[in-house]
Amino acid sequence: MRCEVVAVGTELLLGQIVDTNSSWMGEQLAAAGIDSHYQTKVGDNLERIVAALRIALSRNEAVIVCGGLGPTQDDITREAIAAVMNVPLERDDAVVERIAAMFSARGRSMVESNLRQADVPVGAVVIPQTRGTAPGLICPVGHKVVYAVPGVPHEMQEMLERAVLPDLQARAGTRSTIVSRVLRTWGLAESTLAEKVAPRLDALDAAGGNPTLAFLASGIEGIKVRITAKAPTRDDALALVEAEEAELRGLLGTIVFGVDDDTMESAVGALVEQFGLTVAVAESMTGGLVASRLVEVPGASQWFKGGVVSYASEVKYDVLGVPEGPVVSEPAAAAMAEGVAKLLGTDVGLSITGVAGPAEQEGQPVGTVFFGVAMDGRTDVVHVRLPGDRPRIRQYAAISLLDMLRRRLLERAPGP
Amino acid sequence: MRCEVVAVGTELLLGQIVDTNSSWMGEQLAAAGIDSHYQTKVGDNLERIVAALRIALSRNEAVIVCGGLGPTQDDITREAIAAVMNVPLERDDAVVERIAAMFSARGRSMVESNLRQADVPVGAVVIPQTRGTAPGLICPVGHKVVYAVPGVPHEMQEMLERAVLPDLQARAGTRSTIVSRVLRTWGLAESTLAEKVAPRLDALDAAGGNPTLAFLASGIEGIKVRITAKAPTRDDALALVEAEEAELRGLLGTIVFGVDDDTMESAVGALVEQFGLTVAVAESMTGGLVASRLVEVPGASQWFKGGVVSYASEVKYDVLGVPEGPVVSEPAAAAMAEGVAKLLGTDVGLSITGVAGPAEQEGQPVGTVFFGVAMDGRTDVVHVRLPGDRPRIRQYAAISLLDMLRRRLLERAPGP
Repeated sequence: MRCEVVAVGTELLLGQIVDTNSSWMGEQLAAAGIDSHYQTKVGDNLERIVAALRIALSRNEAVIVCGGLGPTQDDITREAIAAVMNVPLERDDAVVERIAAMFSARGRSMVESNLRQADVPVGAVVIPQTRGTAPGLICPVGHKVVYAVPGVPHEMQEMLERAVLPDLQARAGTRSTIVSRVLRTWGLAESTLAEKVAPRLDALDAAGGNPTLAFLASGIEGIKVRITAKAPTRDDALALVEAEEAELRGLLGTIVFGVDDDTMESAVGALVEQFGLTVAVAESMTGGLVASRLVEVPGASQWFKGGVVSYASEVKYDVLGVPEGPVVSEPAAAAMAEGVAKLLGTDVGLSITGVAGPAEQEGQPVGTVFFGVAMDGRTDVVHVRLPGDRPRIRQYAAISLLDMLRRRLLERAPGP
Repeated sequence: MRCEVVAVGTELLLGQIVDTNSSWMGEQLAAAGIDSHYQTKVGDNLERIVAALRIALSRNEAVIVCGGLGPTQDDITREAIAAVMNVPLERDDAVVERIAAMFSARGRSMVESNLRQADVPVGAVVIPQTRGTAPGLICPVGHKVVYAVPGVPHEMQEMLERAVLPDLQARAGTRSTIVSRVLRTWGLAESTLAEKVAPRLDALDAAGGNPTLAFLASGIEGIKVRITAKAPTRDDALALVEAEEAELRGLLGTIVFGVDDDTMESAVGALVEQFGLTVAVAESMTGGLVASRLVEVPGASQWFKGGVVSYASEVKYDVLGVPEGPVVSEPAAAAMAEGVAKLLGTDVGLSITGVAGPAEQEGQPVGTVFFGVAMDGRTDVVHVRLPGDRPRIRQYAAISLLDMLRRRLLERAPGP
């Protein structure tokens, strides 16, 4: 069973609204074991909505149209579906009553145009509206089907779960479920990662391609490896995913810092909490980026004390006790990490000093960064040269320092 | 000239990534006067990408394919375009050299698969990559054209502005030029803003709808008002835009903090620099977010000295000299602002202390925030209650403090 989502609305094409509805529906369809090979966005234009529906019906057994069910003149999804079904619209008295009831319940007066929402293509089944004034529609087209749902997210979501997905699964006559999990990795180029994972890709292909693997680049946040498995039950699919996760972790080791919604900072936070440590950070070029990531972790107040943004050199000297001299240097990074831990009284001190650009500094080229991690009586400093523009160099530096701390913590014990 | 965006990536169909690229491109195409009637999403499948491209070419003069240009096996946009052009792929030596150079610059080793990114359909023109390893492509198909750009947002955006839009406008060959300018506003709800601007909307409609106005909500960053004018020459269009900007500034006053790429921090930075002041910030709940925004401003080192992230109460007491007592309070905010200015020796001291949640603190409900601005011998503290979840409350608090400083600086002199 293949189902295409067609999102209707000129504002989507103009980028005035990001089409999160289609993403949400795509996720639900996958979880319900319904294949979704295309998604289409089309404006509020009858001829083009009809064309989009015809194309979608030509390559799928089912189509979900989202949006264009409102009361105004540019809400023409009903007309478009009727044209595709080649039937007229007929006003549905039951729907009229529900709309009238909703308006009186909200103490608002109903205008004539609201009754357009009660117009139903002949032969279509109404999905009663419970949240908004627009009903949904189940519209047979030959042996195929077009569903219409409102564009208001919470109305759409409720109707999809209550009426559309059950109807789709009944038609599909299948109950196969898809489960997927994302492994978060950091520190390898996509190509290098792909080579490490290649043996698994080959093995899975040979075994029939279930589960499947996909790589999703996430910029400076690393590369995601998505495992997707299909099985008759959720438990079976989950077992396949977990077996594959074990295989991949075996190949990738500490490159994997988390799964699904984990972030580098949440991974670091979990380890810091596990060891009962407290953390402080001294930042120059990143100007508080590392600290602002750490406080995003729920419960950070248990282990994160704070930090110093020592953007100007004199702040490094006067507040952190960095010895006079070059501030983009290994000694400065070490002194910043030790200084901030001493000033805030923490077990761990972190530091970043470098050149974000546009101009070089102290003869150091743009992209030069020194990272410091002071803990357990040992201060490590790493020196790198990062690519990109100012914001990118900063972002990259921030996550690099977090990963450096993560690896230092993993030395203390076997990883999660 | 009609142009369709085709976004490639199974992760988009599965809803694991929301397709913000297509929305951004739709906005740019509209601003450039290029019609965009459809957008399509398709998975990493050669046959289906080819089918999507053929359909897009059948109903448009131009197509932009986004994504699928990476080095891995599932990046097959190059192959799909070659199939549509009915030509083979040929390895481009110049691209190979650029890729090799990028890897050596980053001290990373290049593997064979990276060279797949140098494969170019015969007859296509390469858009040199400047940020990532994937080049873009301009691919003639009969008298029509297919552009290929990477799916990584900052790579895609740079290529679209540098190469794709200019090429599209040249092909459109329309004599009229379109100029648009975005007024950045902050502090008003969209409906309130729309009411203030209503007189201009009516006047412009009456005058034939040139220039046009559009509202673009940008979450906590405020609401953008885009002025778009069409005229035979760039100068004429620019004159229309500037006349309209003057009208709107008259209606909106200091609600407008900048234009186009201006940010709240760049607006603040310009004023601080104009007055020759230096700035320091003490942050609790925002954990460095304000500082990290300020250092994004080029030249910030001239006026931004740094700050203290006083996340734990003892850091407020010991490092900033906040008197013992409640730390989510007006006195604490005032002491933090004055304390950080004293510690770092700056003219201006800023502070944020509050409750980001999930739990209340010192009996103060989630969303409670106190802002402090200490300058010219006067310390202002503002107390607000912000809505939303942890990240949203933090983001909102950070930009609120920056706007508070901006307004305080505007008191000193007429705004820019």
